[in-house]
Amino acid sequence: MTPDTSGADQAAPLHVQRDARGVVTLTLNDPARFNALGGEMLAALQQALDDVARDESARVVVLAAQGKAFCAGHNLKEMAAHPDLAWYQRLFSQCSRVMLSIHQLPVPVIAQVQGMATAAGCQLVAQCDLAVAAEHATFATSGIHYGLFCATPSVPLVRNVPAKRAMEMLLTGDFIDAPTALAQGLLNRVVPAANLSAEVEQLVQSILDKPRVAVAMGKALVYQQRELGMGAAYQLAGQTMAANMMDAAAQEGAQAFAEKRRPSWKA
Amino acid sequence: MTPDTSGADQAAPLHVQRDARGVVTLTLNDPARFNALGGEMLAALQQALDDVARDESARVVVLAAQGKAFCAGHNLKEMAAHPDLAWYQRLFSQCSRVMLSIHQLPVPVIAQVQGMATAAGCQLVAQCDLAVAAEHATFATSGIHYGLFCATPSVPLVRNVPAKRAMEMLLTGDFIDAPTALAQGLLNRVVPAANLSAEVEQLVQSILDKPRVAVAMGKALVYQQRELGMGAAYQLAGQTMAANMMDAAAQEGAQAFAEKRRPSWKA
Amino acid sequence: MTPDTSGADQAAPLHVQRDARGVVTLTLNDPARFNALGGEMLAALQQALDDVARDESARVVVLAAQGKAFCAGHNLKEMAAHPDLAWYQRLFSQCSRVMLSIHQLPVPVIAQVQGMATAAGCQLVAQCDLAVAAEHATFATSGIHYGLFCATPSVPLVRNVPAKRAMEMLLTGDFIDAPTALAQGLLNRVVPAANLSAEVEQLVQSILDKPRVAVAMGKALVYQQRELGMGAAYQLAGQTMAANMMDAAAQEGAQAFAEKRRPSWKA
Repeated sequence: MTPDTSGADQAAPLHVQRDARGVVTLTLNDPARFNALGGEMLAALQQALDDVARDESARVVVLAAQGKAFCAGHNLKEMAAHPDLAWYQRLFSQCSRVMLSIHQLPVPVIAQVQGMATAAGCQLVAQCDLAVAAEHATFATSGIHYGLFCATPSVPLVRNVPAKRAMEMLLTGDFIDAPTALAQGLLNRVVPAANLSAEVEQLVQSILDKPRVAVAMGKALVYQQRELGMGAAYQLAGQTMAANMMDAAAQEGAQAFAEKRRPSWKA
Repeated sequence: MTPDTSGADQAAPLHVQRDARGVVTLTLNDPARFNALGGEMLAALQQALDDVARDESARVVVLAAQGKAFCAGHNLKEMAAHPDLAWYQRLFSQCSRVMLSIHQLPVPVIAQVQGMATAAGCQLVAQCDLAVAAEHATFATSGIHYGLFCATPSVPLVRNVPAKRAMEMLLTGDFIDAPTALAQGLLNRVVPAANLSAEVEQLVQSILDKPRVAVAMGKALVYQQRELGMGAAYQLAGQTMAANMMDAAAQEGAQAFAEKRRPSWKA
Repeated sequence: MTPDTSGADQAAPLHVQRDARGVVTLTLNDPARFNALGGEMLAALQQALDDVARDESARVVVLAAQGKAFCAGHNLKEMAAHPDLAWYQRLFSQCSRVMLSIHQLPVPVIAQVQGMATAAGCQLVAQCDLAVAAEHATFATSGIHYGLFCATPSVPLVRNVPAKRAMEMLLTGDFIDAPTALAQGLLNRVVPAANLSAEVEQLVQSILDKPRVAVAMGKALVYQQRELGMGAAYQLAGQTMAANMMDAAAQEGAQAFAEKRRPSWKA
């Protein structure tokens, strides 16, 4: 790992680390508050994601966390102090913008889940393109325990997990363990805590081995076509794939295939 | 359990029981016909669901059944006697209205499946928000065996079960057992028959522990946002969550969280 | 099996076999090129599918393959030789038309996967209504290894496999084995290679036992209603089911049910 290039002080709620390969690691760094998504944390996440969106040499984002919890979701204490509809609307709008930024980012985002992920913390995991968890991590859409149904978390949840499983999590607020989350589609892999960063690194390396433009075109296409009917989806996908094929990296890839050698791409 | 408050005679095709907690148990009670969804049964279900929709003190519905079968679907004998397009259109329209009423009910509906669920009986299980089955229960979309593709059952089936699994059930009409139905997403839990009502009661109690308004807002939101694109889904979910947060129960919940105590809600 | 009725020579890229029962077996027959979907193969597939669409006595299609691979997807060598946007657009349009023809065919299509299925070969498996694989078969959306994101394969993939699993396959290009593909929803069954054709034959026979019109109405309905909201889906499904019920085979089926005998349908 290269040193922290963010220039941020160690007390900042979010650490931004960027290595020479274009791997941006965003580490939630407010363990005393279980990395709750208060206004300051959300603003820092938005800023970091906007920076990645503009950075053409960024290749992949890892979303990690410090401490026992991955993320406990919204800061209910902060919310209790602002009993105001407009304030809540701004908060959920701000949070949804962060989530949509992950969704729309041209590079894949991998959740590296080292502990408990609840409410909007569980939503973060669901919203990421890929997710790897330590085997002791736990997951819940727990807002309902406090009278607040996890409405925004349900958006990526029902797009990742079968309907009745999602509904059970949302209505009961009960925790599921990491193997259950894996079986239900919320995670890609579950590993011993000691192997967590190595497992994420393996996915990172696999993405780094691929051309950036193909990955960016592909990520956007997958989510766009999923919202279309089958015919329109194929139309968009065919256009995307033809455009992708005109890219120099794909031309080199096809040539390499024809010549039975590995593609030679600039790093 | 409090006594039956429906005033219905014991020969009625549907028993309606409502306890002091607001738990409404609808019991299909035509075991001699495997609880087939004939015109009378559908009318009784519609009436009971409409009553629940108007009852602001209702909290959760349990859909149970008497006898060996949970529900055998439409009454094919009745259908054979009416070879008339308009009659069939009315029948499927009546049945779909029951299914959509479950979907739109402001309280969760839990299927308590003690036996075989076929065709529109399997559809009932798929349509409920949650479903628990006895381990010997079996499931099939069996209409195709009689030349009638389970078209309306396919609506909730493909929204609960992976596409190729749903298509296999629909094309073959073959039974799957309860563990398979669980693995495919059709059920939340499978338990020994002796534990069936206790397992359902656990889910009921979990829902009773939550404020009614949050549950009602949440159930509606989940199904509405699922039909939207990601951006529109987040917009609706954010509005819903802000409105939910303004409810007295959520305000008390957030205060309780801030004060590290349990929320105190009226029963 | 009846003899090959296609009149095609043995060097043709696609063998078309049609038996007396209306079972059409399309066998990819270019093992030297791992049954790649070059222009000639795609044209032969389109022709064969169009013939089935017009053949009212066709009942089911089995898509099989000769050699070690099921299908390696597009012919990258051919693509490398044509660095031209319009050429690529025509190619993906041609391929998508084949996929949509499988989707729209009035009879079910079963993939019989005896070996490796990559890129558009994996797409073929995902696009079929049902899929059975030999236990050593492997699956990958591998285009990304050559700089070409499997955009069109992602269309049926995300409609069969949970989102994060699909994204991992698409971003890494890594192979999954047959049991994993089964668990993820890409396959209906995995069997020892020696049992592959017998297992497919069992599904074929199950479909042959059902009336053609009900199967055709049902397959079309499932895919159409899946793209609609719940209310519109029920409306369409109810209309379809009423129309299906007016068919002579369904009338006989319902009569047979009422009379507790097996339906008697013409073969």
